[in-house]
Amino acid sequence: MSPRPAVRPGGRSARVRQSVHTAVRELLQERGRDGLTVPLVAARAGVTPSTVYRRWGTLRELLSDVAVERLRPGSPPEDLGSLRADLEGWATSFAQQTASPAGQARLRDTLAGDPDGSNSGRCAAYAAGQIETILSRAAARGERAPDAETVLDHVVAPLVYRALFRQGPPDADGYARSLVATVLYRLIPLP
Amino acid sequence: MSPRPAVRPGGRSARVRQSVHTAVRELLQERGRDGLTVPLVAARAGVTPSTVYRRWGTLRELLSDVAVERLRPGSPPEDLGSLRADLEGWATSFAQQTASPAGQARLRDTLAGDPDGSNSGRCAAYAAGQIETILSRAAARGERAPDAETVLDHVVAPLVYRALFRQGPPDADGYARSLVATVLYRLIPLP
Repeated sequence: MSPRPAVRPGGRSARVRQSVHTAVRELLQERGRDGLTVPLVAARAGVTPSTVYRRWGTLRELLSDVAVERLRPGSPPEDLGSLRADLEGWATSFAQQTASPAGQARLRDTLAGDPDGSNSGRCAAYAAGQIETILSRAAARGERAPDAETVLDHVVAPLVYRALFRQGPPDADGYARSLVATVLYRLIPLP
Repeated sequence: MSPRPAVRPGGRSARVRQSVHTAVRELLQERGRDGLTVPLVAARAGVTPSTVYRRWGTLRELLSDVAVERLRPGSPPEDLGSLRADLEGWATSFAQQTASPAGQARLRDTLAGDPDGSNSGRCAAYAAGQIETILSRAAARGERAPDAETVLDHVVAPLVYRALFRQGPPDADGYARSLVATVLYRLIPLP
């Protein structure tokens, strides 16, 4: 079960979500994954366990909601003046995150407690949103650019697949840059 | 904890693994995921629960081992006479499997109980093995072919990313064929 659609920001429901997320993050840091239980989280957040069960269903689904929230980008990707620089900047930072043990744990947690696919969908939508910002800037500069689907398929997907199934590339930065080069020099449709 | 390295095939350890796997598959069919417990699996397999805990650690890790075993290819990819036909045949079948609810559940189970990455690594190695068979045949025919890494990055990774994070492509076959065409017509190094 995913959290219900957001209600008024600042309302009780939003406050509960925030305090439960904070409790999970703190307890993960203090006790690690195996020390976590719903009663512990509820006590730290100052809510009843049944509030947590009602809203998230299980601990796994709560962990998934927290993980995907931590994957939410804090700001738009930096404008470095060219499509290539912007894509390389974003892709190397995304590669470092997904290849790190914490990043891998977030991706796995996102998938593990996501029965309806909505949390993994949010995760892909965050990446797509950042890429679309970069591509709109390129269009405004008059640069020839790939579409967002091409970047998702040929930059994001290989980075995520490597992180999840192949223990990450040995050189995350170089690998991310080579994927960007492939998209820019081989996969942009000819004019 | 992953199962210990295989011992003599036909030995006690191999027999236990087989009967526990069979028990999990039967119980998944009969009761679904949420009805499964280690004592139930052990009873069906005719072993003690402690045998299961000792060997797999947790139910999640057992489910991961069973899931990746079901992803193991039963036979080499069919030889259809050309690199393009072989890759399309394999990729469309892989796309259908990963996009199906059962295939998605296997990928998620593989990742969920895989603390050291060995099960997800086996999953990637199975795909790589099938691809290498196809590429060796192409080389024997004298066809120009991509390397296996290119096929993993630009065919397998987008299929898996779509299945796990984007609810699968609406047309798995057409999508798989378009990825194969991209690799064959855009990503093979020029001679």
